[in-house]
Formats: sequence, structure tokens, C-alpha cells
Amino acid sequence: MTEFLSLIPPAKARELYLQKISDVLELSTEILPTVDAVGRIAAKSINAPHPLPAFTRATVDGYAVRAEDTYGASESLPAYFKIVGEVKMGQAASIELFPMQAVLIYTGGMLPADANAVVMIEHTQKISTQEIEVYRSVSAWENTILQGEEIQRGEPVIGQGTKIRAVEMGGLLALGITQVEVYKKPRVGILSSGDEVVPPDHDIQPGQVRDVNSYTLSALVRSLGGEPIPYGIIADDINQLRNALRSLRDQCDLILITAGSSVSARDYTAKVIEEQGSPGVLVHGLNTRPGKPTILALAGKIPIIGLPGNPLSAYVIATHLVKPVVYTLQGISKIPSPHTQTARVTINLNSQAGREDWIPAKLIFTDEGWLAEPIFGKSNMIMALARADGLICIPEDHTGLAAHEMVTVELLES
Amino acid sequence: MTEFLSLIPPAKARELYLQKISDVLELSTEILPTVDAVGRIAAKSINAPHPLPAFTRATVDGYAVRAEDTYGASESLPAYFKIVGEVKMGQAASIELFPMQAVLIYTGGMLPADANAVVMIEHTQKISTQEIEVYRSVSAWENTILQGEEIQRGEPVIGQGTKIRAVEMGGLLALGITQVEVYKKPRVGILSSGDEVVPPDHDIQPGQVRDVNSYTLSALVRSLGGEPIPYGIIADDINQLRNALRSLRDQCDLILITAGSSVSARDYTAKVIEEQGSPGVLVHGLNTRPGKPTILALAGKIPIIGLPGNPLSAYVIATHLVKPVVYTLQGISKIPSPHTQTARVTINLNSQAGREDWIPAKLIFTDEGWLAEPIFGKSNMIMALARADGLICIPEDHTGLAAHEMVTVELLES
Repeated sequence: MTEFLSLIPPAKARELYLQKISDVLELSTEILPTVDAVGRIAAKSINAPHPLPAFTRATVDGYAVRAEDTYGASESLPAYFKIVGEVKMGQAASIELFPMQAVLIYTGGMLPADANAVVMIEHTQKISTQEIEVYRSVSAWENTILQGEEIQRGEPVIGQGTKIRAVEMGGLLALGITQVEVYKKPRVGILSSGDEVVPPDHDIQPGQVRDVNSYTLSALVRSLGGEPIPYGIIADDINQLRNALRSLRDQCDLILITAGSSVSARDYTAKVIEEQGSPGVLVHGLNTRPGKPTILALAGKIPIIGLPGNPLSAYVIATHLVKPVVYTLQGISKIPSPHTQTARVTINLNSQAGREDWIPAKLIFTDEGWLAEPIFGKSNMIMALARADGLICIPEDHTGLAAHEMVTVELLES
Repeated sequence: MTEFLSLIPPAKARELYLQKISDVLELSTEILPTVDAVGRIAAKSINAPHPLPAFTRATVDGYAVRAEDTYGASESLPAYFKIVGEVKMGQAASIELFPMQAVLIYTGGMLPADANAVVMIEHTQKISTQEIEVYRSVSAWENTILQGEEIQRGEPVIGQGTKIRAVEMGGLLALGITQVEVYKKPRVGILSSGDEVVPPDHDIQPGQVRDVNSYTLSALVRSLGGEPIPYGIIADDINQLRNALRSLRDQCDLILITAGSSVSARDYTAKVIEEQGSPGVLVHGLNTRPGKPTILALAGKIPIIGLPGNPLSAYVIATHLVKPVVYTLQGISKIPSPHTQTARVTINLNSQAGREDWIPAKLIFTDEGWLAEPIFGKSNMIMALARADGLICIPEDHTGLAAHEMVTVELLES
């Protein structure tokens, strides 16, 4: 009936676990249309196939000129230019430009070969259909963006292991790169266990609770770029757990189990996970609240994480341990920091030295800036999170936080 | 050829525009499975149909007892209890409890009717199959969570206009609420214009550029909960613009146009938008860089936003003006703040008084905390954003930022 856990600080457990996973990681890739690759991780570095801009462009409306022809021009002593044409948008600027000649050009237009600057329209005056006065001098390449000034041919657009955001997608498309090789989405098996757990569409009988973890974890996995594979609910039964793990191992890159609460289930969950292959259970017990009974294991190349059954604990641990694993399995080179908000905590918070505490909190914007109001209740269940904007961390080397102290609130995934 | 803009501060423009949109807003709703509603906005407040927990539960493993029977118990003077049964997980606790009797119970188990506390297993010793010693007293309801302690029947789970995150979804499922009424996704028509613009899969000829805005804006709209309806590219032609707007008006809740760069296009874009219906163009010109030529209009109930053609400008303005509009059109009660990171800016940045500047920046984590390194280049195009983690704002009442000054970096959507 007793359960001996050797409690490890969560940061150390995370580092150890990610290292062990990285050591055996084998990533698969797929080719996707660039427009569908937002949120995915680039499997190869991509270099620019041509410079951008592809040609030197005007950055203002005005007249393309040879800069040296404008030197000395002023309001009192304008320079006179002959208009010899107009650069149409989207067309080559094939006009030949002789000294003291100007070509009408618009923002984004292609500079004629002999021009090396643009005089802003505001600094000119048309004096006939064919002639303008220019009131200011321009220096070489003023009001232009040079061919290759955004990116040179061969320069990297995106590095291997980088997340493709909307803006990276835009950069790739600007260069005509319409397909991209990305790492496959990790398939994440999700298993809820417990004799007391029933599906959400069931009426509950006395003693029963509805499954929440399968769904909150699926949503989290999806938002992190993984593909959730829900297995459903199993009873507190060692053979059901064995069968479920055998089935999930064949189709998943990561398995999450929310453990049953019964003592027998706790006794055999680590054992059955250990059976799945070496190195087996690497961590059993985190020095954190919530989340103490967490199991981190590796069966061959497949990470298996045993999460607490309590929905709040399961979700909090998932944001700290499942998240970096899902990113690692996508081949990301740098795991993104969580979004945070600094705020003043409204009340004193106590914690046990040596233990890392996570407390749900509501963020309130006031005249004095952001306040973080802890949400209590011994329940510590899903409703506390549904009322929270984020989590306050009390680090393991603290025994608490004083009211009005500045804290970093880790925002919940939206 | 000249274009007169009366420049409005962006915050004021935003407030004015959202107010005008709210004044005529008509929202439609749909019923979705709760598990598919993450990221959507609740159209109705939802109250708990039953208390949670549905029954009083143990929060530890131990023995359910009558608290008063333990009073005075200590290591040196234990109290003796007779074990009269065990509460199975997932089953009703139908055991009758008489004085000095105890029932074995596990975390999450249902408390028997006559019990009002749980003694932790660690504070007991089994002295025979039928009898335990108890070494500590417990107070009434110690180590339990009461029926309704998470949420009472009739208490609100989620308010109208609230975004359903994974944790709200979990809260609804815990209560057996498997369907939820949400506001429909706004359909957002996206139109690129410009004689120089060609699709991304085209080879570019001198003078041409590939369309980026249609795709970055679609990705942004999708991430904000809208449904992008890409119209494609039109030439700089007043009749093509008229036809496109007519077509989009019939199928969209919001229209985004990235304007052509030619002067004629700029001259007629506002005019054609104005033709679409009253109140018409509300703002033409923002006192911001980038994004000065932005147009904010309302044609009947349909907002139309004219964005600059430059991909960086279009995206920056979209994150500040399209985002709150897409949220407003989903019926959200409180537009979420952008995710931010405070950091020290690495160099001096100059700005024009009265103008709000947005500068792409890279975030670098160092021993001294976060640094924000501005990304320059007169290009100011999509590659600058692809290299940036976020945007530094120089507010309109500043003429710049000093090196090492603390700034708030608004993170780009991932």
C-alpha cells in the first residue's frame, strides 16, 4: 500500500528526460505545401534561391534619376530634368536614362538600369508635360531598396529545427518556395485509467467522475503540434493496462497515461511501464505540487509519461513536461519559453522548502499594473484552472512569496 | 497624385472603429461538441447542472471515520478503530458507520454517509485484519473535498463572450456538458491587389513580386479564430476592385484588402470602399510607422480594412487592427492582450514625436536577462519579421528609446 518515491526537482527531471529522449531520437519528415506548414518544424535549412528584392526598387513615389545630376539642387536653385517615361508596376524598367533625365516611378517599381536614386514626388514640381524642377539633391541609392538587400541568394531563410510561423511562411513564399520539408507530427497516445472514470456523455453514478484528462491533454497536444490518439478509458486492471500499452506502442511516438487513483493501480502502473522496454522508468516522483506521482519513462525510443489522475495536476505537469517532449519529438532546435506576465501577487503564499509549487492565479489589470490573485480551494481541480489566467511558480529554494512581491505568471495555453 | 491623409493615433482609431462595429454587430451562433469548441467564444453563459464533486470525496488514501472519534488520539495514546469495509473506486459508499468504526478509502473515493473525515494511511497502523490504531486526530471534513466545493449547482462555469480554452472545455466535460453554443467563425475575405503581384508558385519577371499578404493574413485570421476566404490577386483596376468587393460582401463578415502600390490604385481604393455603403471610410491614415496609409471602413455591417501592400506593414497593422476586429466579430467580451516579453533594448532608437513606431526585434536571453535587438534595414519587409521574435513599440509621446531602456516586446503570433 505504501509508495516510495525518490523525489527529483522538476527542472532536473526535465533535463535528464529530454537528454535521454534526444539520445535515441529518430525523426521522420514529410513534404508539405508551404502554406500548410505554419506551426511545423523545418527539417532542413532553406537558403534563398534568388535575391530579394529580385531587382532594385523605389521605396517612394517620385522620379528615378542619376543622383549626381541632383547635386546642388535646392528650392532657390532647382535642377531641371526631362521626363523620358514611366515605370509601370510589375514591368521591367527598360528605359535608357541619359544625364538630366528622369523617369516617373511608384513605390515598389523597378529602377531603370542607369538610375541610382529616386527623388520624392514632394520635392519636385512639374513645369510642363515633359519637364520637372527638382528642389533637393539625393545621394546614391537614396529612396531605393537594392537587389538582395532583404536577403541575398544563398543566405539562410530558415534554419533546420526552426518553427515556421506565419512570417517565415511569408518569407518562403516571397522566394517562390511553395513546398517545404518538415518533421512529421508526433502521434501521442492518450490513455485515461480508473475504475471511477466514465466518458463525459455519461450520467454519473455515486462514486463516478467523468473523464476530463483525455480531452484537455488532446487539446494541449494538438496546440503543441502533435497528433493526439485517444485510447479512451481503461479500468484499474493490470492486464487492460498491458494491452493498452502494447496497442499504443505500435502506433505512437509518445504515450501519456493518467493513472488510476486506486492503490493497486499505483502499485502496478510503474511496473507495467517498466515492462515495456529499457531503459524503462527514469523518474518516479517529482518534488513539485501538484504532480508528485509523475512517472517519466522511455521504452526503447518511445517516451511514456505517467501523469497524476487529478485533472489540474495532469494539466499542470503536461504544460511543463509533456510540452517539451512533444517539441523534442518534432525536432525543434530550441524549445519555446512559455508566455508569461509579470504581476504582483496579492497575498502571502507559503510553500515547503525544496518543493516547487504551482498555483493557479487570475490576472487583474489595475492602475498599479498587473496583479496575480491566487485561486485556492483544496479541490485543486479543473475548475480552478478554468478560473485562472496562468500559474504562479514558487521555486524550490523559496518557502513562499510575500504579498505584493513581483512574480512571473506562466499563462495557460489558449 | 498627392494623397492627403488626416493621421489619427492608432489607439484612438482602434477604439473608434471597434465602437462603430459593435454598434451594428449581429452575431450568429452554432452548436458544437464541447471537445471541438476550444478556441471558440461561448454564446451563452453556462451554469453547473450539478455540484462538483458530485459527492464528498477523500483527498488522501486512508480510513474514513467520524472525526470526533479521533479526538485526543496521539502516538503515545492511539485510538482503536474497527475496519468495517472498503470503498471501491467508482462505487457508492453504501457502508453504515458506527462510532469507532473505519472504512478503507482511496484518494477520490466517495465518503460514506456517516463519515466526516479521513485519517491518512501514514497516521495509522493495522494491528489485525479487522483493527487499526490511529495516531492523530482529524477535524471535521479534514482530508476530504465536499460535494459542490469545486462548483455548486447553478454557479457559472463560463460566461457569455468567454473564450473556451482547453481548461474550460475540461470543466464543461466534468459536468457532462458535451455540447456548447458558440459564435460562428467570422468569414474574412482577403484580397491582394497590384499589377506587380503574382502568385507564389510563379517565376517572377523583372518588376514582379510574389503575393505574400494573402497567405500571412490567412494564417493570422485562422489563428485568431476566423475563417479566411482568399479571393486571390487583382490588378490595379477600379472595376476589378469593384467586382471583387461586390463578390466578397455577399460571403464575408470582414474584408481585408492589401492595396496596390500604384498611385491610381491608392486614389481609387478609398473611393471604391466608400461606395460599398455607409458609414463608409471612417479612418484613412494612421499616425504610425509602418502602416500610415491604412483605411478603416464600415459598409453597412461589414468592416473593410485597407492595409498597406508592403508585407511587413500589412502584417504589423493586422496584428493591431485586424486582430481586435476578428475577435469583436466573434462576440468576445474582452479582447485578449498580446503576449509580451519585457527586455532591455540594445541600442538607441529614434522616432518622430506624435507617431507610434513598431520595430521588429530579436529577443536574446543573457545572464542579465532578456535583450531586445532591433532588426533594421530600409527594406522593412517580410524577412525582417521572419528574423524577429516580436515588435518593440515606441509610443507616440516618445521621440525614441535609449539603449538599455526596458521595453515591452509584443511577441509575434506563432
